[in-house]
Amino acid sequence: MSDPELLESEVERPWEPLGERIEASDHAGAAEFLEELSPEDQRLAMAHLPGKSQITLVENLSPAIAAELLERLPEAHAVEILEDLSPEAAADIVEELPEGIGADLLREMHTEETEAVLAELDDADEADHLRERSGYEWDTAGGLMTESFAAFSEDSTVGDVLHELGEHAELYGDMDVQYVYVTDGGGILRGVLRLRDLVLTRRARPVVEVMIVDPLSVSVSDDFDSLRKVFDDKNYIGLPVIEASGLLVGVITQQAVREATADHQTEDYLHSSGIVGGEELRSMPMFQRCRRRLAWLAPNIVLNIVAASVIAMYEDTLQSVIALAVFLPIVSDMSGCSGNQAVAVSIRELTLGLIRPTEFVRIVWKEGVLGICNGMILGVLLGTIAALWKDNVYLGLVVGGALALNTLLSVLLGGCVPLLLKKFKVDPALASGPILTTATDMCGFFLVLNLASAVLAKLA
Amino acid sequence: MSDPELLESEVERPWEPLGERIEASDHAGAAEFLEELSPEDQRLAMAHLPGKSQITLVENLSPAIAAELLERLPEAHAVEILEDLSPEAAADIVEELPEGIGADLLREMHTEETEAVLAELDDADEADHLRERSGYEWDTAGGLMTESFAAFSEDSTVGDVLHELGEHAELYGDMDVQYVYVTDGGGILRGVLRLRDLVLTRRARPVVEVMIVDPLSVSVSDDFDSLRKVFDDKNYIGLPVIEASGLLVGVITQQAVREATADHQTEDYLHSSGIVGGEELRSMPMFQRCRRRLAWLAPNIVLNIVAASVIAMYEDTLQSVIALAVFLPIVSDMSGCSGNQAVAVSIRELTLGLIRPTEFVRIVWKEGVLGICNGMILGVLLGTIAALWKDNVYLGLVVGGALALNTLLSVLLGGCVPLLLKKFKVDPALASGPILTTATDMCGFFLVLNLASAVLAKLA
Repeated sequence: MSDPELLESEVERPWEPLGERIEASDHAGAAEFLEELSPEDQRLAMAHLPGKSQITLVENLSPAIAAELLERLPEAHAVEILEDLSPEAAADIVEELPEGIGADLLREMHTEETEAVLAELDDADEADHLRERSGYEWDTAGGLMTESFAAFSEDSTVGDVLHELGEHAELYGDMDVQYVYVTDGGGILRGVLRLRDLVLTRRARPVVEVMIVDPLSVSVSDDFDSLRKVFDDKNYIGLPVIEASGLLVGVITQQAVREATADHQTEDYLHSSGIVGGEELRSMPMFQRCRRRLAWLAPNIVLNIVAASVIAMYEDTLQSVIALAVFLPIVSDMSGCSGNQAVAVSIRELTLGLIRPTEFVRIVWKEGVLGICNGMILGVLLGTIAALWKDNVYLGLVVGGALALNTLLSVLLGGCVPLLLKKFKVDPALASGPILTTATDMCGFFLVLNLASAVLAKLA
Repeated sequence: MSDPELLESEVERPWEPLGERIEASDHAGAAEFLEELSPEDQRLAMAHLPGKSQITLVENLSPAIAAELLERLPEAHAVEILEDLSPEAAADIVEELPEGIGADLLREMHTEETEAVLAELDDADEADHLRERSGYEWDTAGGLMTESFAAFSEDSTVGDVLHELGEHAELYGDMDVQYVYVTDGGGILRGVLRLRDLVLTRRARPVVEVMIVDPLSVSVSDDFDSLRKVFDDKNYIGLPVIEASGLLVGVITQQAVREATADHQTEDYLHSSGIVGGEELRSMPMFQRCRRRLAWLAPNIVLNIVAASVIAMYEDTLQSVIALAVFLPIVSDMSGCSGNQAVAVSIRELTLGLIRPTEFVRIVWKEGVLGICNGMILGVLLGTIAALWKDNVYLGLVVGGALALNTLLSVLLGGCVPLLLKKFKVDPALASGPILTTATDMCGFFLVLNLASAVLAKLA
């Protein structure tokens, strides 16, 4: 055991003593130190260790302890580690992971590496099973379901079921059993038993007389939107998941659907901030982080050049009224802000189901009125400043008018673009920003410079 | 009953037939139509009805049905409606709402209106109780706890508890009971009983012999960070919530904490997009929506003017090399994009507990290397385009060098600002964007124009 006083003083930077033990090849000491940390400090320590040390550590833990550790890490981090391990070592850990989580991690790995790990699993059936599960998209019924559920044959009596549940109370307790399922000899779903009905019935009765026949179920391939809708319509705690043949393969809980909604919202936030290709953690290799961020920046620079080319077409106007150069970035940035607000509200309303992706008239009306109001206020504000600065009312009119018009335009666009993208099945959080910014930048530059050209004599 | 064929054709725009019935004062018809809609369509219809019609509808529903409807709406929308009702009508509905939800809604209402509703409640005790609960911040233990739990006196035997649970299985089933609590005569928490221990014990034993004595609990005023930490450390399903006196007042579940995490992330997304003061829905009054968005835009325009004032200081340089005006918005926008990526990663790492708010050295190192790499790539890209366009290598060096330097600067700032704000207890999602944009705009303008001034002879 470590000296508790020492531990106390080390805990501020738990990765340091851990890293030292790993460097010194004190694998037992590293494992012991790790296990004394809280899950939170384990996560913190792993995020701070160099990649090589992380791998050395995990390789020298027992597969069961390593699996426990990976479960505590953010999914993206656990996937990183599995990919860096040898397929044999990764397979040993995957065998120890709870059902579902192994499939989640394998799904996010590169295909060749997933296959290499699956090939190393001792149990060929388990490998087939994981291959199938990791093939479902994470936010479908197949990706979100749990495979531990209580199912009984349609030959059972109520007494059989109660006896079995009582005998294995601990096992079934872990499952958070709310319903019990009834299947035929081939595992085809036949009915659902409510615990209440089980308790309030003579024990000799066959379950088929007590169960709900022809129960509501979802298909493994059902996508997130339809899952959200079905759990939204009725307040189900869980629903059985079946394959096309009717085979009962899992149960999906309301909680799993709610967690998936939260994950979608996290994705929206990261996408709207230009983090593409999944989440980035600073524990990832530098090259990968650069590449992922450039995947967003490189198209953006092209769009920016396209937008700024409008300025190049008006070099003469700008040359005569150089003050306009001060206002070009202001108009473009403020319009971007206004448009982004409309984007956020549209994405939120789509998520909550308060608007259908076809309702452009509603958006144009609701954002139009707001755009005119806020555009006028912001236009008067900026126009007044411009007019006072250069003591020229026309400059104020040009700058203020351009901002007012461009604000209206950008809230209309910002409100509608997410709906349009949703209709064409493109992620609105990912693509709305660049489309909006490019369009409103171009229009903003055009409006300022074109209005200025029109009254050039009064400005110069 | 409505004609089912008619209903089918109406469902595309459910708010229209609903609105017609309300306008025609056919309150019974409106209520009947509403009840035939799915919860999803109810929400959609309410979001589309004019505010006045919504109020008329709710006023003419029975309080129980109205409470059910409000429960299905987004919280912000339900609060809007309660505020527009008379205090008497609102009080009737609040009485029908499940415990906790009433407090959530009252907390979000304006203080005077909350008080007016509380004054109208028939039961003074319930009013006091709701006043207390709505006083807790939503994301503290007091705000997130449920008050329905199973508690038994320390005089009870195991048999008493099992009998009581069996007699009222339905009631306790709704509570999702995982533990049973033991209190003294005054309601002070004494112990926790695991259901497993209850079942595996002689029924005559006193519960005090079976219970976990001195159990872990949280205080009503514990804030979200400490709740997340305690549920993170150990995988508790639920924990008792006590007042300072030790009085057991509620239970907080792991699920409630997980949902609060999701709500925090939604808030982050809305804040980072410039939606302040809670969420905006387009069903809210126009004036309120304008005002909330302006609360974000008005300070932003000031910051934009401050940033652009750098350009004004270099009017002469710009006058001689008007081509620079094309590149100013590109440099400023691209740096903003790079910085926002770093902001998103920092906020995410803070949320996941992968970084402490004091670790600036780590950020500077991790973002610095990345910033040099991505800055060089983007700088060469933009510099080449600038050089080719005007056939002037110096223009390329100025523009590319400014972008490279400013990219480095903005990822460093973007990475550090959320940590700094977190340290000073300011919401990073709300304030990071404007601080970052203003700083990188100013630096970007300064770098382009200052580098250009230095080699002006070669550019003009």
